[in-house]
Amino acid sequence: MSLVVVGSVAYDGVETPHGKVDRMLGGAATYIALSAAYFTEVKIVAVVGDDFADADRHLLASRRIDLAGMETVKGGKTFFWKGLYSADMNERTTIETNLNVFGDFQPKLPESYRSAPYLLLGNIQPTLQRGVRAQMTGVKFSGGDTMNYWINDFRAELLETLKSWDFLLINDSEARLLSGVDNLQRAAAKIHGLGPRTLVIKRGEYGAVLFHAGHHFMAPGYLLERVFDPTGAGDCFAGGFMGYLAARGIRPKDGHMDMAELRKAVIYGSVMGSFCCEQFGVDRFRTLTHNEIEARFQEFRSCTEF
Amino acid sequence: MSLVVVGSVAYDGVETPHGKVDRMLGGAATYIALSAAYFTEVKIVAVVGDDFADADRHLLASRRIDLAGMETVKGGKTFFWKGLYSADMNERTTIETNLNVFGDFQPKLPESYRSAPYLLLGNIQPTLQRGVRAQMTGVKFSGGDTMNYWINDFRAELLETLKSWDFLLINDSEARLLSGVDNLQRAAAKIHGLGPRTLVIKRGEYGAVLFHAGHHFMAPGYLLERVFDPTGAGDCFAGGFMGYLAARGIRPKDGHMDMAELRKAVIYGSVMGSFCCEQFGVDRFRTLTHNEIEARFQEFRSCTEF
Repeated sequence: MSLVVVGSVAYDGVETPHGKVDRMLGGAATYIALSAAYFTEVKIVAVVGDDFADADRHLLASRRIDLAGMETVKGGKTFFWKGLYSADMNERTTIETNLNVFGDFQPKLPESYRSAPYLLLGNIQPTLQRGVRAQMTGVKFSGGDTMNYWINDFRAELLETLKSWDFLLINDSEARLLSGVDNLQRAAAKIHGLGPRTLVIKRGEYGAVLFHAGHHFMAPGYLLERVFDPTGAGDCFAGGFMGYLAARGIRPKDGHMDMAELRKAVIYGSVMGSFCCEQFGVDRFRTLTHNEIEARFQEFRSCTEF
Repeated sequence: MSLVVVGSVAYDGVETPHGKVDRMLGGAATYIALSAAYFTEVKIVAVVGDDFADADRHLLASRRIDLAGMETVKGGKTFFWKGLYSADMNERTTIETNLNVFGDFQPKLPESYRSAPYLLLGNIQPTLQRGVRAQMTGVKFSGGDTMNYWINDFRAELLETLKSWDFLLINDSEARLLSGVDNLQRAAAKIHGLGPRTLVIKRGEYGAVLFHAGHHFMAPGYLLERVFDPTGAGDCFAGGFMGYLAARGIRPKDGHMDMAELRKAVIYGSVMGSFCCEQFGVDRFRTLTHNEIEARFQEFRSCTEF
């Protein structure tokens, strides 16, 4: 079933201990969409400048990603971000951020998007996220991501937005900040009370924890031989997670999700996040096959079962 | 089957955000033994002063822990350590260390210990660890723990000691320091080359990873509602891990261990480490039952299977 993805499409400059790329395709919506498109039909809502390269547009289109909702601003420039990773890649310093056309992003959904049953809202201003959801006419499972900046400076707007979300996907420091509680179990309980009945807390190299209906599920981080570039890994996790659920048509019944399917969705998210780190930017998704995805899913099983 | 445990028996002063205890039973060998004794017969090799309380001796003896190898130095004082945990408990500051009788610890094995098949060497000077192993006559599976200090300042002695170890249990920063490699997979491959064919890398709240014969297994950290005192959790992990293997008589065959049993041993280690954090010092082990251990083992399964 169709998944609408809202967020940034950008150009990134990235330097890691393994190399440096001055300008390459990036942005949360790009990573989410490329990841989710392995599972289901994806429709992007985003904005780019007229510097957005045909080759990048073709890459997205080649994955049957619907670009009807990707607005091109004439005379505008695409969002640009440049970052530097520390030697152990656990820290990232932003060197440059030019919001460009993304600074005035007002997501507008084409008519053809509005009846899609799945919605994944990337990390944008909470009121904009709410506006997108309001444009959807038959959404069955929706939610998304947020970040420290919105939690701190737009808390009221974010809390209003979260009320209607089925799921929230954030990292552990964001979960602690949002809930005001250090302990993850208790943080999760508080966040459930804010709206999202399904919560996934991402823990970087340590994996992810899913909380739903009094149960939790822990997925380990995949032990990569070499991490080339972690940019976008969390977004690829989100794309794999939602892509799997959308493909299978999983949605809440009497407020409850099928826990077995949610567990698999978390593992597919982890699989996609792990592949993302294996090459710079989106490069791994230029060659990644369904067989490789299935093989890694089985690897997750074999390194966790007892 | 019998397990010989060598290491410190101590008094600890501990302060965490949940409280403060000025003086209570502690030490690596104490935690290891109390944990392992839930699974198998344990024989302690340690040294204490004549300030060592009868009540503490009785606690150990009540678990059928053999104290024939626990030397009491007349006029001597038991090792004392005092530490303070940070608000999130991820950092620990040592306030006071008085080695006392432990400073001259020369482990001597009673005759009745020497034929034991299992040996777990707590974190002491590597040459002393080697001396203990040399006193064993029929050991089938041996190894232990070490720390940054020995890795940095006694590297040659440690490398000599590791050559004869079947397993090594260390944390992730120690694994990186010992191997000189950041990436855990490649660090593990290097450490296998130093001797220990079974490696467990402990990652604190994030669980543990087992490496053996080209396979790895990842155990999550148990999500505790409240961590009262993490002191001794790593030692309790080691005790559960080795206690389970010793109880089942698991040993290398043609250099290979039964991977299914190793996986279970890691989970029992994680179970015991998690219980340790639930109360101050060794207090949780005063009331912990076998039924609680089995229930938590099943909980680990239910929060990881997919």
